[in-house]
Amino acid sequence: MAGNIFGGVFRVLSFGESHGPATGCVIDGCPAGVSLDVQDIARDLSRRRPGNGGPGISPRNEQDEPEILSGVFGGKTLGTPIAIIIRNTNQHSEDYDDLKDLYRPGHADWTWEAKYGFRDHRGGGRSSGRETAARVAAGAVARAFLALSGITVTAWVSQAAGINSPGPGDPAFDPAAAAANLLRVPGRTGQAGKRIEELAARGDSAGGVVSCRVSSLPPGLGEPVFGKLFARIGEAVLSIGACRGVEFGAGFASAGLRGSENNDEPIPARESSDGLPADKPGPPTAETGLPPGVPRLSFKTNRAGGSLGGISTGMDVEFRAAFKPVASIGMAQKTVNRNGEITECRITGRHDACILPRVVPVVEAMTALVIADLTLQHRSARI
Amino acid sequence: MAGNIFGGVFRVLSFGESHGPATGCVIDGCPAGVSLDVQDIARDLSRRRPGNGGPGISPRNEQDEPEILSGVFGGKTLGTPIAIIIRNTNQHSEDYDDLKDLYRPGHADWTWEAKYGFRDHRGGGRSSGRETAARVAAGAVARAFLALSGITVTAWVSQAAGINSPGPGDPAFDPAAAAANLLRVPGRTGQAGKRIEELAARGDSAGGVVSCRVSSLPPGLGEPVFGKLFARIGEAVLSIGACRGVEFGAGFASAGLRGSENNDEPIPARESSDGLPADKPGPPTAETGLPPGVPRLSFKTNRAGGSLGGISTGMDVEFRAAFKPVASIGMAQKTVNRNGEITECRITGRHDACILPRVVPVVEAMTALVIADLTLQHRSARI
Amino acid sequence: MAGNIFGGVFRVLSFGESHGPATGCVIDGCPAGVSLDVQDIARDLSRRRPGNGGPGISPRNEQDEPEILSGVFGGKTLGTPIAIIIRNTNQHSEDYDDLKDLYRPGHADWTWEAKYGFRDHRGGGRSSGRETAARVAAGAVARAFLALSGITVTAWVSQAAGINSPGPGDPAFDPAAAAANLLRVPGRTGQAGKRIEELAARGDSAGGVVSCRVSSLPPGLGEPVFGKLFARIGEAVLSIGACRGVEFGAGFASAGLRGSENNDEPIPARESSDGLPADKPGPPTAETGLPPGVPRLSFKTNRAGGSLGGISTGMDVEFRAAFKPVASIGMAQKTVNRNGEITECRITGRHDACILPRVVPVVEAMTALVIADLTLQHRSARI
Amino acid sequence: MAGNIFGGVFRVLSFGESHGPATGCVIDGCPAGVSLDVQDIARDLSRRRPGNGGPGISPRNEQDEPEILSGVFGGKTLGTPIAIIIRNTNQHSEDYDDLKDLYRPGHADWTWEAKYGFRDHRGGGRSSGRETAARVAAGAVARAFLALSGITVTAWVSQAAGINSPGPGDPAFDPAAAAANLLRVPGRTGQAGKRIEELAARGDSAGGVVSCRVSSLPPGLGEPVFGKLFARIGEAVLSIGACRGVEFGAGFASAGLRGSENNDEPIPARESSDGLPADKPGPPTAETGLPPGVPRLSFKTNRAGGSLGGISTGMDVEFRAAFKPVASIGMAQKTVNRNGEITECRITGRHDACILPRVVPVVEAMTALVIADLTLQHRSARI
Repeated sequence: MAGNIFGGVFRVLSFGESHGPATGCVIDGCPAGVSLDVQDIARDLSRRRPGNGGPGISPRNEQDEPEILSGVFGGKTLGTPIAIIIRNTNQHSEDYDDLKDLYRPGHADWTWEAKYGFRDHRGGGRSSGRETAARVAAGAVARAFLALSGITVTAWVSQAAGINSPGPGDPAFDPAAAAANLLRVPGRTGQAGKRIEELAARGDSAGGVVSCRVSSLPPGLGEPVFGKLFARIGEAVLSIGACRGVEFGAGFASAGLRGSENNDEPIPARESSDGLPADKPGPPTAETGLPPGVPRLSFKTNRAGGSLGGISTGMDVEFRAAFKPVASIGMAQKTVNRNGEITECRITGRHDACILPRVVPVVEAMTALVIADLTLQHRSARI
Repeated sequence: MAGNIFGGVFRVLSFGESHGPATGCVIDGCPAGVSLDVQDIARDLSRRRPGNGGPGISPRNEQDEPEILSGVFGGKTLGTPIAIIIRNTNQHSEDYDDLKDLYRPGHADWTWEAKYGFRDHRGGGRSSGRETAARVAAGAVARAFLALSGITVTAWVSQAAGINSPGPGDPAFDPAAAAANLLRVPGRTGQAGKRIEELAARGDSAGGVVSCRVSSLPPGLGEPVFGKLFARIGEAVLSIGACRGVEFGAGFASAGLRGSENNDEPIPARESSDGLPADKPGPPTAETGLPPGVPRLSFKTNRAGGSLGGISTGMDVEFRAAFKPVASIGMAQKTVNRNGEITECRITGRHDACILPRVVPVVEAMTALVIADLTLQHRSARI
Repeated sequence: MAGNIFGGVFRVLSFGESHGPATGCVIDGCPAGVSLDVQDIARDLSRRRPGNGGPGISPRNEQDEPEILSGVFGGKTLGTPIAIIIRNTNQHSEDYDDLKDLYRPGHADWTWEAKYGFRDHRGGGRSSGRETAARVAAGAVARAFLALSGITVTAWVSQAAGINSPGPGDPAFDPAAAAANLLRVPGRTGQAGKRIEELAARGDSAGGVVSCRVSSLPPGLGEPVFGKLFARIGEAVLSIGACRGVEFGAGFASAGLRGSENNDEPIPARESSDGLPADKPGPPTAETGLPPGVPRLSFKTNRAGGSLGGISTGMDVEFRAAFKPVASIGMAQKTVNRNGEITECRITGRHDACILPRVVPVVEAMTALVIADLTLQHRSARI
Repeated sequence: MAGNIFGGVFRVLSFGESHGPATGCVIDGCPAGVSLDVQDIARDLSRRRPGNGGPGISPRNEQDEPEILSGVFGGKTLGTPIAIIIRNTNQHSEDYDDLKDLYRPGHADWTWEAKYGFRDHRGGGRSSGRETAARVAAGAVARAFLALSGITVTAWVSQAAGINSPGPGDPAFDPAAAAANLLRVPGRTGQAGKRIEELAARGDSAGGVVSCRVSSLPPGLGEPVFGKLFARIGEAVLSIGACRGVEFGAGFASAGLRGSENNDEPIPARESSDGLPADKPGPPTAETGLPPGVPRLSFKTNRAGGSLGGISTGMDVEFRAAFKPVASIGMAQKTVNRNGEITECRITGRHDACILPRVVPVVEAMTALVIADLTLQHRSARI
């Protein structure tokens, strides 16, 4: 119950402190027969690591080379636990010597001690953002599994430093562009990069919003009561440090709509010759079939965000997650030390002024882990 | 994994279809020795049930009389599973005969069939809001346990039909008033009731926002990685049907703040003679102590919403949850039937035009279940 | 973690004290579409209940009428939790008044108080054998699911009061006969009944051994490390009160064999036209297929007891479980009371002198629950 | 559910194939503050590894050097996951080339393929005994935690190659001696070593029985229904490859006793000045206290094996586990190959003729893991 294992059937255990020997994860429950190469994992990790450049991103260069210790043989998963480690090789633990006896504002330093009695103060220990490298590695395995059903998970930065990116409906909106620019925005970077650089120069920091879309999800995934699709994704995304909110489909705006405005109109779905809707790519798999006698539907709109009653509709799952600004700032701040005395804190280590671009692969990873898990859970829904 | 069991140590299983013999829950993991009376459960259920009156609330009169079948002896919990059932006594199953071959817009009718192959069409079956009676009953047990530590969970309607209630900071804000009015708003009802009645008269419906506050929570609860306090509450609240978003503390607004604006300033906490901060009521218990050598802190502000790094700070936990408008509306809607043909749907059963007031005790219950669970999980954090 | 939930995917929660309002269970995770009638449950319960007569069996007449509260619609499981309750209607709580301040030898009275601080002393409370009624009810649901794959679970009394029944290999061995006689022995009752009556007359009691066989189990079930087939069955059977040991296949005797004696020789299996071995009844189902390219094997002998490396071989699973004699005896015994003083205890309530016949359906139920769970877990083994 | 995670609160995940890069484990849920050194782990591993010499033990020299990757800081556990890896450095994968297309008798080769479709044939892959190194490493962490309460777990070989060692009650019985001799027998080695050497010389193999004792266990551990102390230990021990049975206390023999013979007589326990029985060493801890008003008991005998109703009595927990003879034998055996043809198999790799001495630390480790878990679970039993 210590909260380092995530998922029910497709499960991941994350381990590692930021300045300890290694960070890593073990996936338990990935089916046998999934093609998996260490490069699949390295690719996702490289999108998360710092040192890529970009506005306000720390120049520290974490190599983040994953090593697969188990669970893969001849390029395929064995059905056994897949252990992946990433050595911590570029840590400057001495940066944290001055901070070990005080509680940084906005950080978990004090709450950690309140819980456990002591902490590894170096680089935030386990509450460091470095922990998310393990999630990204695990997410890469989940994606490899989901690729078999054609399911994709794509995230982008929809707001940074208070500046919105083009959104769905806007002609400038292009989620594919997010992979190509360093801010991960779906279109032109615009003013956000400049604003972040200004904040960084003043020793301040920015937050933002990440949007995510799951496509080609078959209908029927998610459990109707506690394990609702949105509940599971919400838990996953809110478990990322700095996340302060999540909304699905029309989200908070739906609270102000009338029922007649908000309901999406069901429509019959045309089927292609392979039994799938004509507009859904990918081969039919064990995961994607409808039970006999159930017609294939689609919907004219998707204010529901891809789920009704906790179960996927087959429309894209769409959500947005808010992240607070980075807590580590160079400006002087008042705080309290271990003796309970008021003191001043000035954080001088290498930190990012805005982590949003680096959060994008983490949101994708957590979402992919949920979808992989729900996919396997669904296998037990019917005789 | 079927998603009807919630929690890790303090766990609840919910069961029941809306028109089946009974709805109920079993709590497994409630410690022995908690004073519990069936009236504690009945009281919370009466706040959830329809028939209380109020704007847009269905006049159907569900008695919702809970019966405790096990786990309590001599007025105290035994440490064994506490089974509670509520007979379904006022069901009009024939209201649903016309609906059994079509898929109501905004409902889980089709997604349910996509998952399981068939469904109990009467009253929504298990995807009915009636299922939340089981949650409220379980939440009452969690509250009885939390009362031992002085922890309280209070929710209210902060927006209904697009109209905001007074919020914290507003002089008219009075959360205690929410218990007294039928809309559960923290102050005067204002225009919201009238707007709901208008929508109801037109056969339309409304959504809204529920706010919730957990007070007197000791610091140290929550797990630092996947089991973060906000992740656990977020999952819990998003598992309530119709919930479309949740935000904590400064929430989505925090995404646009600068780090220097958003960080809450730690300050030393004055301690009273019983070792607790002077401003925290309640007796010191096993759950509330800090480890030796860790000073007691407080914070000048609470934009963090009561948690840092996934672990409670001792400040109030504060969050808001958005609920879409009721999907069942009396107006004619186009939809698809079991043969995949377009048809018209007109819902004539007894349904609420706005469920927000009835959602309040459900949000409280789910939150109390999470806090009870995290409280017990925390018992294993240290030697 | 309170230990009242059993299983991973096909899960059961058991609740109820022996003299509380009801005993019951909830099954979460049974797939939708299984034919289930309350009579299926009643039938198994009637084999467990006292009042059937038979040597040394208490004449108390528990009606044990199950009521299904949820999860079944139109004679089929919905995929939702199946709640079943059995009212406790024939309790003589006053029989236990004299016992409430002392600790009965061989019972959980004192260990229960050591754990929880107090107990429901009436009839043993939750540590009563009555709790197994919930298991039998849940097992009946598991059997209904397993019947779809042709899997059967059959147990019998192989030793009672120190007297062995005919065993496999003995011409008198006839497991079907066990359903017909009151001692549940696979052949003629012989001396055991008489011996039990003698012990009962003296106020003493007997133990014994139950044997169990799972037939038509497909190969591939069970998980290779912690979730081994024998580990899971062993846990299940040892969770029945009074069980003191379990052995599989050649069991303890195998410890003294040489490897060359103990290994079972693999042989090719003849396949019938439906792809199954000619000697295996039942239709081929999703659960029973071998992966492509894997030949169907059989074995000349079955000292392995139906599992190699934790995974089923397709041979019958065979095991034996030892049960200590009934702790409640009419003879005077010395014990200690709540004040820590030595006292005398004489148990006068209605109790069985030998519970072995009544344990048979409980062993079957627990085994069926494990097999149902492993069957669903296996669905996630491969892509 | 893939069966590589064990435990509820104190949990361990095991990973690794015998000829992959590494074997290892991650412990999630160990409380913060436990003193832990890598040498504690290395010491237990050295008792498990081959190359120690001894009758019938393979001369292959696995170094088994553990590396702690996370969860320990300044010599103490942090409350975060403790990842431990052991590189596989002395593997002769080519020994298995001849075996990759046939199914070794008594091994999991075929059942593995029946489950997953393919396997890592090198050294048995994940079904190799090498996997138990991970268990021993995890068990060392559990022991370090249990040492705080004075709880000890000690196992020995009580039967090897059909020859019994001195048992409790025999004047020659000396469990401490088991640590000093290579057969791990509690006294003089006697004929067993010679018999194993004879079998090894003939290319044959032996099995045996391991006995285990848990001492200084406080009363109150274990859960009264499915999570009974014996159920949990039974599951743990039966999850060790080759285990074919387990019995507790008087075990199978108790089945033939009368109730009046089998019940252990409760007696008042003298308390020493620290509130513990005079004969129980170790300091009183949070884990060892009795609830107010419950007298401390002891028992004249211990046929119950240390548990009543699934809950520890405070007497030693005692059990015996049977292990079948090693399946890998040098003698020619008939078997079936991947084409379903009968063929001959002769296993020439480096294998042990009797693994019993090496099983001793594995039984201890699995038992320690259960006790650590039950200890933490017990923390939630009472308010």
